Amino acid sequence: MNFSSKLLEQAVEEFSKLPGIGKKTALRLVLNMLKREKDDVNRFATAIKDLREGIRYCLKCHNISDVEVCQLCSNPSRDAFTLCVVEDIRDVMAVENTQQFKGLYHVLGGVISPMEGIGPQHLSIDSLLQKVANGEVTEIIFALSSTMEGDTTNFYIFKKLTNYAIKVSTIARGIAFGDELEYADEITLGRSIVNRLPYENAINS
Amino acid sequence: MNFSSKLLEQAVEEFSKLPGIGKKTALRLVLNMLKREKDDVNRFATAIKDLREGIRYCLKCHNISDVEVCQLCSNPSRDAFTLCVVEDIRDVMAVENTQQFKGLYHVLGGVISPMEGIGPQHLSIDSLLQKVANGEVTEIIFALSSTMEGDTTNFYIFKKLTNYAIKVSTIARGIAFGDELEYADEITLGRSIVNRLPYENAINS
Repeated sequence: MNFSSKLLEQAVEEFSKLPGIGKKTALRLVLNMLKREKDDVNRFATAIKDLREGIRYCLKCHNISDVEVCQLCSNPSRDAFTLCVVEDIRDVMAVENTQQFKGLYHVLGGVISPMEGIGPQHLSIDSLLQKVANGEVTEIIFALSSTMEGDTTNFYIFKKLTNYAIKVSTIARGIAFGDELEYADEITLGRSIVNRLPYENAINS
Repeated sequence: MNFSSKLLEQAVEEFSKLPGIGKKTALRLVLNMLKREKDDVNRFATAIKDLREGIRYCLKCHNISDVEVCQLCSNPSRDAFTLCVVEDIRDVMAVENTQQFKGLYHVLGGVISPMEGIGPQHLSIDSLLQKVANGEVTEIIFALSSTMEGDTTNFYIFKKLTNYAIKVSTIARGIAFGDELEYADEITLGRSIVNRLPYENAINS
């Protein structure tokens, strides 16, 4: 692209570094910024700067938080012995929205991905193992994405937990509610037959 | 959405004000920002602030420019008597990419859109008429989008130009190159029959 202004080019360049934003979309977003009030644009820039500089993570679950120990971890009515292991804050929000989980979370901060250069040492796995070693946990539920990376991470942590007498489970994989069988992929359908549930359990849950 | 951090919520709020960006996409973009270096994020915020504060428009064509008169307007090898009227900088870039136009541009800064509260007084129509009144222009080519708003703007300016002895044209509408007839809409196909070209002209252009 041939820009008539260096300032414009820089702004488009910066926007197009964001995931899923190409040059054309970046230009559209930047032109929208130009039509807004200066104060409005300053508020945008400041919000992002403040976030990056002021961001803190909960000392216990590693979720994004404004205080040392997040609201969830400091809530006495939640079951502190059950940990749900998730990738990032989006998954905490997704699980919280179901209102089906009353334990605490442990946010890994990603999944093991050799392709992207993310190894176990980049994730908060050690502090999870420490919690288990300290006897703070009796059950761990893995709620990671059903991808190669998610499964690898599951397996890696599972291996490290074999010496401890705790319950370890992963969320169920299967046909989603409202899905039609004929459009389900073979692996999902196959696994959902192997891992079938007694009918009474399935309708009660 | 229930955010665990006020800073995070603010940043997501700001991002989701951008056109075509919902709350979920905004959260994805913000989390990407968190994984980046602080300097990198500051550069992003500064680029946007600088753009909004330092932006200037060419005194002649109203295109975004870093100098008083843009590169195109100050290029002596271009035909200053032919003006191409466009909506914004994206259209200037699109027409420039064709390498078929050697005249100058006039950027309106939008199109007449009562739905969005944009009237002729918000666009740089007066300065266009002034150029015509001063005898600076002999031909005007409208290159506006083929929408209700684009056509309205075309017609509004055309009406104001009737008293001047200049050539006024609009870019051709028709079947795009590579398009199959059966998928063309009726209006486009109908118009392209009405506005058919002598075969020799069509293959020479």
